[in-house]
Amino acid sequence: MKIIEAKTEAVLIADQPETFVTRRIPEAYFEMGGIPGDRHFGITRPADSRQPMYPRGTKIFNRRQITILSAEECEEIADRLGIEEVLPEWLGANLLLKGIPALTSLTMGSRLLFPSGAGLICQGENLPCRLPGEVIQKMNSHHPKLAANFVKAADRRRGIVCLVERPGIVRQGDTVRIWVNDFARPLQ
Amino acid sequence: MKIIEAKTEAVLIADQPETFVTRRIPEAYFEMGGIPGDRHFGITRPADSRQPMYPRGTKIFNRRQITILSAEECEEIADRLGIEEVLPEWLGANLLLKGIPALTSLTMGSRLLFPSGAGLICQGENLPCRLPGEVIQKMNSHHPKLAANFVKAADRRRGIVCLVERPGIVRQGDTVRIWVNDFARPLQ
Repeated sequence: MKIIEAKTEAVLIADQPETFVTRRIPEAYFEMGGIPGDRHFGITRPADSRQPMYPRGTKIFNRRQITILSAEECEEIADRLGIEEVLPEWLGANLLLKGIPALTSLTMGSRLLFPSGAGLICQGENLPCRLPGEVIQKMNSHHPKLAANFVKAADRRRGIVCLVERPGIVRQGDTVRIWVNDFARPLQ
Repeated sequence: MKIIEAKTEAVLIADQPETFVTRRIPEAYFEMGGIPGDRHFGITRPADSRQPMYPRGTKIFNRRQITILSAEECEEIADRLGIEEVLPEWLGANLLLKGIPALTSLTMGSRLLFPSGAGLICQGENLPCRLPGEVIQKMNSHHPKLAANFVKAADRRRGIVCLVERPGIVRQGDTVRIWVNDFARPLQ
């Protein structure tokens, strides 16, 4: 079992009713269900196009409580789009980590552990949707076709979703220890 | 994305306070958190030896709501132990499925969908512990060393744990449709 360390570059919250875009905050208390006040907070959520096995709008368990991006993958997306930067805010991230370049490939069941004792469990790769591309387009209006190109540019670089396994506070600057789940000898 | 069908051979509940051994019931209502009245029911549970990243007893999110075994793997465990049968009751199963021989290898994030609309999401392989071996030993007192041999015999045959993604009733005899999560093109 491998343990990796990374740094919490930013903590962010989606608390503006009209948008999924997040804003930076110095720290957040992660509860069972996510970050109170964040638009993805809750033990349940309505199924959407990502869960085609359920009718859209069905109340299902919420595994998309916390969205995490890596700084390295954001840079790769920007490079592929030919723009200077892609901010985690535009992609609706709750955490930006630095030091784990292939975050999106982190296996399901891996744990992310913070100094306060807070723990997250990886629930897999996030899938790029069109909406952040529209934000990036708006922020870079002189570049053509960013919205159209975003999904491809972000493929396998879109980070992960997690659920809160153990509540606690998470602060900007925190070192996070990542227990990587190895399917050959899985964590439970 | 592959879809497999299997049959619900048995529905079981651990509702006897002194033991993890389950008993058969004709049907159960699966709620968020599991089966009400079952010893594993709840949105949270105390961390144990399976979660060495947390101090033992810490309140963590409960991903072990529903335990599922395959009839084929139970037969394999019995063969390896040299006994006639291994009942799902002895291993504390909540569901016994037939028609999915390598159930224990089912990928995390796979969905199990029942005719009522109930849906489970696979949270990975269960890890054999010593306790069911002691039950098997007691039930087969003429055979030596069953308790000692159980963990090895059950390795990679111990089934999976799931959490309830969409509540609903599950009945003995139900056909279950399994959407197998492919990490190359993951379900979210």
